[in-house]
Amino acid sequence: MSFSKALTDAAARVQGRLDAALADREDLPVVHAMRYAVQGGKRLRGFLVLESARLHGIAPEAAVSAAASIEALHAYSLVHDDMPCMDDDDLRRGLPTVHRKWDECTAVLAGDALQTLAFELLADPALGPAAVRIELVASLAKASGAEGMVLGQALDIAAETAAVPLTLDQITHLQAGKTGALIRWSAEAGAILGQADRVPLRRYATALGLAFQIADDILDVEGDAEKAGKRLQKDAEAGKATFVSLLGLDGAKARARALVEDAEAALAPYGPEAGTLIEAARFVISRES
Amino acid sequence: MSFSKALTDAAARVQGRLDAALADREDLPVVHAMRYAVQGGKRLRGFLVLESARLHGIAPEAAVSAAASIEALHAYSLVHDDMPCMDDDDLRRGLPTVHRKWDECTAVLAGDALQTLAFELLADPALGPAAVRIELVASLAKASGAEGMVLGQALDIAAETAAVPLTLDQITHLQAGKTGALIRWSAEAGAILGQADRVPLRRYATALGLAFQIADDILDVEGDAEKAGKRLQKDAEAGKATFVSLLGLDGAKARARALVEDAEAALAPYGPEAGTLIEAARFVISRES
Repeated sequence: MSFSKALTDAAARVQGRLDAALADREDLPVVHAMRYAVQGGKRLRGFLVLESARLHGIAPEAAVSAAASIEALHAYSLVHDDMPCMDDDDLRRGLPTVHRKWDECTAVLAGDALQTLAFELLADPALGPAAVRIELVASLAKASGAEGMVLGQALDIAAETAAVPLTLDQITHLQAGKTGALIRWSAEAGAILGQADRVPLRRYATALGLAFQIADDILDVEGDAEKAGKRLQKDAEAGKATFVSLLGLDGAKARARALVEDAEAALAPYGPEAGTLIEAARFVISRES
Repeated sequence: MSFSKALTDAAARVQGRLDAALADREDLPVVHAMRYAVQGGKRLRGFLVLESARLHGIAPEAAVSAAASIEALHAYSLVHDDMPCMDDDDLRRGLPTVHRKWDECTAVLAGDALQTLAFELLADPALGPAAVRIELVASLAKASGAEGMVLGQALDIAAETAAVPLTLDQITHLQAGKTGALIRWSAEAGAILGQADRVPLRRYATALGLAFQIADDILDVEGDAEKAGKRLQKDAEAGKATFVSLLGLDGAKARARALVEDAEAALAPYGPEAGTLIEAARFVISRES
């Protein structure tokens, strides 16, 4: 199966699981906002879960709740990140952000409930033995809390008011949390589900996550706001250090390409079955949104 | 052991577990705010976990991570609830709220990370077999998400702009989510840990949770703001329906007493061992904060 077909399939499966989880709820703005916030997006994280599961012989039906979980968690982080006190964004994926379409209160609550939903989905018995599911919970908590994603967000906010721009090491540490931690969890989830060695997928995902963020920084400079569906050139306006400001545009591109090569090399133990994950890494540095 | 001694002991154990969980983190405002937000409070929910565990022969060391989990979750809900877009409170337990001491951004992130911490704590192997821990995760997610606590918060917000005040049935439904769901989870946690019948503790906690909220409404009218450590008479100012506005002050007190009797009756199967939980129910309707 080609990467683009696998990505489309993963997106449809993840959406179906999220729709089912959010069906039959009370008719309230917070529930509408939750459904709205989990629409669309590339579903790269959900795809990584389903593909890494496939590498370990796990059928999509037995992994989809983990894929939906990471997309619910990612959606919560975007809803809160877009709020006025955080990034203050009006648009997300070309549509009004939750606090613009509803209000801040609904954005806080919908984000909170989406985080809860992420953990609820990991308790789904379809994911396998309780030991596997509790390991998914423990690792997602590490990846998303104040030692993972939230740590990265907090470092990002601290950087905005810092007297001197961040160094390359500091930005790498920040991004390993802010975007890297969820990407790593997604790719490792298949090994957790398959109760297999996580090291190859961790190496793949660490390289992929960093390449993803470098590509984001390049997109922020070179991208088309319409295709991206969000405001661009924010970092330059804010005078923030990025991989582009530190490495230059050509240097950043070269670094991203080297990381994609490392991601590919990490998957060697899986042979040709890992083709779609390799394509995913190439896609990440060539995307327009 | 007396109730007040058991409550003090529970508070110390819970604080120790939360302190350990938040040790060795990076030196950032979000981490300071998390530590600040989990200080103090009566720890009633943590006490319910430890006492219901004791009724099932579970030692405090084997239950404390669940007690700390519910207190971390409760703390997250307070940090977000106090924000300007929600209840807009400056004081909590007599101290500045997180968004007043730091800023809104830190309050959003600290609340988010405290919710994550709650689920991380439930993965602690000290709580027993993986099947028990994943059941704690599943039930906490149900209790705290858009079908539990967040549902109650959303109904509460909807009530503020509703054309007509809520009925008694509607307020009871709202409170079963807003405050009841976490109290029920806390009391049932011991039965989950002990892999025992949850029905007696569920009946106890359902009555206790409602009595707790009626007492809160009475406190809002009759209480001393200094002892309570927070602003009072908010509901009357906002013209909101409460148990007091619907039942009258005497009617609300009579209802709370009847609920405490029902809570006591529910614990009959446990005999005298349940004495501290019975005292807890009596305390809930006589407290001053």
